[in-house]
Amino acid sequence: MSQSVSPKLSTPFLVTAQQADIIRAMRRRGVISRTDIAMMTGWSRAKITNEVGLLIDKNFIKEVGDGKSEGGRRPRLLSINNDLGFLVGVDIGATSVDLALADVCGHVFQRRSEAADVSNPPDVLLGRVSEVIHEMAQAQQIDPGKIYGIGVGVPGPVEFSRGTLVAPPLMPDWDNFSVRRYFEAAFPSAFVMVDNDVNIMALGEFYTSGKINPDNFIFVKIGTGIGAGIISNGKIHRGDTGCAGDIGHICVDKTGPVCRCGNKGCLESISGGRAIAERAMAAAMNNESPILARHMAENGGFLRAEDVGMAQREGDRVAAEIIQYSGKMIGEGLAGLVNFFNPSHIILGGGVTGLGNQFLANIRQSVLKRSTPLATRHLVIEYSRMGTEAGITGAISLLLEYLFYVSDDVP
Amino acid sequence: MSQSVSPKLSTPFLVTAQQADIIRAMRRRGVISRTDIAMMTGWSRAKITNEVGLLIDKNFIKEVGDGKSEGGRRPRLLSINNDLGFLVGVDIGATSVDLALADVCGHVFQRRSEAADVSNPPDVLLGRVSEVIHEMAQAQQIDPGKIYGIGVGVPGPVEFSRGTLVAPPLMPDWDNFSVRRYFEAAFPSAFVMVDNDVNIMALGEFYTSGKINPDNFIFVKIGTGIGAGIISNGKIHRGDTGCAGDIGHICVDKTGPVCRCGNKGCLESISGGRAIAERAMAAAMNNESPILARHMAENGGFLRAEDVGMAQREGDRVAAEIIQYSGKMIGEGLAGLVNFFNPSHIILGGGVTGLGNQFLANIRQSVLKRSTPLATRHLVIEYSRMGTEAGITGAISLLLEYLFYVSDDVP
Repeated sequence: MSQSVSPKLSTPFLVTAQQADIIRAMRRRGVISRTDIAMMTGWSRAKITNEVGLLIDKNFIKEVGDGKSEGGRRPRLLSINNDLGFLVGVDIGATSVDLALADVCGHVFQRRSEAADVSNPPDVLLGRVSEVIHEMAQAQQIDPGKIYGIGVGVPGPVEFSRGTLVAPPLMPDWDNFSVRRYFEAAFPSAFVMVDNDVNIMALGEFYTSGKINPDNFIFVKIGTGIGAGIISNGKIHRGDTGCAGDIGHICVDKTGPVCRCGNKGCLESISGGRAIAERAMAAAMNNESPILARHMAENGGFLRAEDVGMAQREGDRVAAEIIQYSGKMIGEGLAGLVNFFNPSHIILGGGVTGLGNQFLANIRQSVLKRSTPLATRHLVIEYSRMGTEAGITGAISLLLEYLFYVSDDVP
Repeated sequence: MSQSVSPKLSTPFLVTAQQADIIRAMRRRGVISRTDIAMMTGWSRAKITNEVGLLIDKNFIKEVGDGKSEGGRRPRLLSINNDLGFLVGVDIGATSVDLALADVCGHVFQRRSEAADVSNPPDVLLGRVSEVIHEMAQAQQIDPGKIYGIGVGVPGPVEFSRGTLVAPPLMPDWDNFSVRRYFEAAFPSAFVMVDNDVNIMALGEFYTSGKINPDNFIFVKIGTGIGAGIISNGKIHRGDTGCAGDIGHICVDKTGPVCRCGNKGCLESISGGRAIAERAMAAAMNNESPILARHMAENGGFLRAEDVGMAQREGDRVAAEIIQYSGKMIGEGLAGLVNFFNPSHIILGGGVTGLGNQFLANIRQSVLKRSTPLATRHLVIEYSRMGTEAGITGAISLLLEYLFYVSDDVP
């Protein structure tokens, strides 16, 4: 059982491999000239004229004005035709759904977010998502028949080639449910891609992290659970059964607490959001920290990981110790993965990153201490700058990867 | 700094992407018919006739007789033309060099192995390797000008796109030395590929593991050191600076012995060949095991990991305990990687696998205990069947990946 096989897609925009190269360059740079294409491909002027002409005839790309002259006539600039149609990004979380409407260049122009409960049966939740998509389209006066792609992130393992969840712990009713088929039926004009939420965040990071697209990096989401999205050789690594990146149950302390999975000392049971909050609540109740106790009283008897970060910034010693310990243990877990995977970047996201800079510093320190020097020579460890946008950005990025689909049967 | 960029190659066999697909299918299946090509590609009969004709004209492929009829005329079978020229696989180990001469289909027809010392300067060792290649060619009455590829495995991190070693701990004189350039000068007809020895073993395993090519798997070499070769989405994952797979220094026991790297409880310092032998020698000297003491006396005061395996099979309790502990700790180190990477297979090679089936059973047990059920549902953990052939087989496999090189400028 292998996940690496590409899904069979029915995107409406079929191109040749060579045309796909041009479109990829436009996506990276925004606009390019025919001279840029010549430099990239080594093609003859006649071939460029022909290929560009075909893409313009199909409305896939358009001329968008003149570039800077370098001696002769000013070169015409080309870009993807952003009037071609629309894409929808959907990020399904355990307790909420985020949606975004974008053009085919990936520019988001409308967002929605609402509470949702993934313990509901799939058709209830996805029915509501479909309604919201229609509402968003209506608000923008968009024909739903011009929605050409729907990208969906879900909080569980996905068999990518089928767009189906596989034994998702948070959402038992969804086991084997084809999210893809659901949306294909609801929006017949759209091709549908479904992936694990952390994979999608990694992809969002990959495409928006500035000019450098790091080909080998790890996105780590630290929330209640802890998961990783993995990019290897510029592609998402999903593993054999689609559950790669499940790092919350890596053992970091054999003498640690018993985890909900039954093993001892799992990373999640030590450094996950719930573990951090529980340690802080215990300290508050044992009168070890007046600051934490105050936050807990203000919240109605409850603490979240963010409260621990606030208490630390207010000078609370216990909160600082909890953060230091959690960061250190995450660093120890990641150190082994750094030796194994040799990433250029580790990007950290998820609610627990709200703990702030001290947490990041502790993670870094502990990774550097326990990884080999060769593996950390150029390693960058930092917080994601995408915040809550990561999921929907990633869902749309996933669509953009496949929107102009390479086919041998280009009409 | 990214390793994923393909090296600039000057292989003599340029093909189009479509021709490369046909050749890849021939490599997998040995022979294929024009009907097979039609089924694979969906091409028209005219297009197949044209593409196959071009490849035959260039001598890249040839007709090799008739297949089984399925009603009409018996189909002609096609294969890669194994008379096209020759390839050399070189596996440089710490203390020996293995060489193989193969045809362009990868069939090895001559092998050599000799002692060597990588602490020698590179031009001394590679000078000798070049001599041996000439001797092998002469023995087979082969024109060295028909050697079209040389694949080299080296025991250290490699910057793959340049064919250069980077800070290799075992061979300081080789830092930044271009093995590729050396062989390109010595054999001008050949293109040269250089990679880390464990990567190459993983590749050898990938191509020879039967009909299924596992797209996501880990090859683990357990010798004096412990290293992994990683296949992600069907491609070697080399990491950002070429040192992915350096798993010998993953911490598996925070209270463990101090490793040569300065950290505590590294996998290598607990389960590496030297660690196993040293534990056994200590037991022999402390009169804890008469059987180990006898082996040690017979070997002139020294034990290797293999001796521990023999003692265990002779019923020695101490040897069994050492094996159990080492296997358990390897399993614990691998368990985290299984959660992270979700491989379909973990293939174990290297001298320490000589410890036998008990060792393998202990590794398996410990991986299953500490990994998530979803990640181990289909996981296969077994010993490599390639033995000492793994390196040279892999070196030749690496050449085969690039021999028919996809180019836009196919003459």
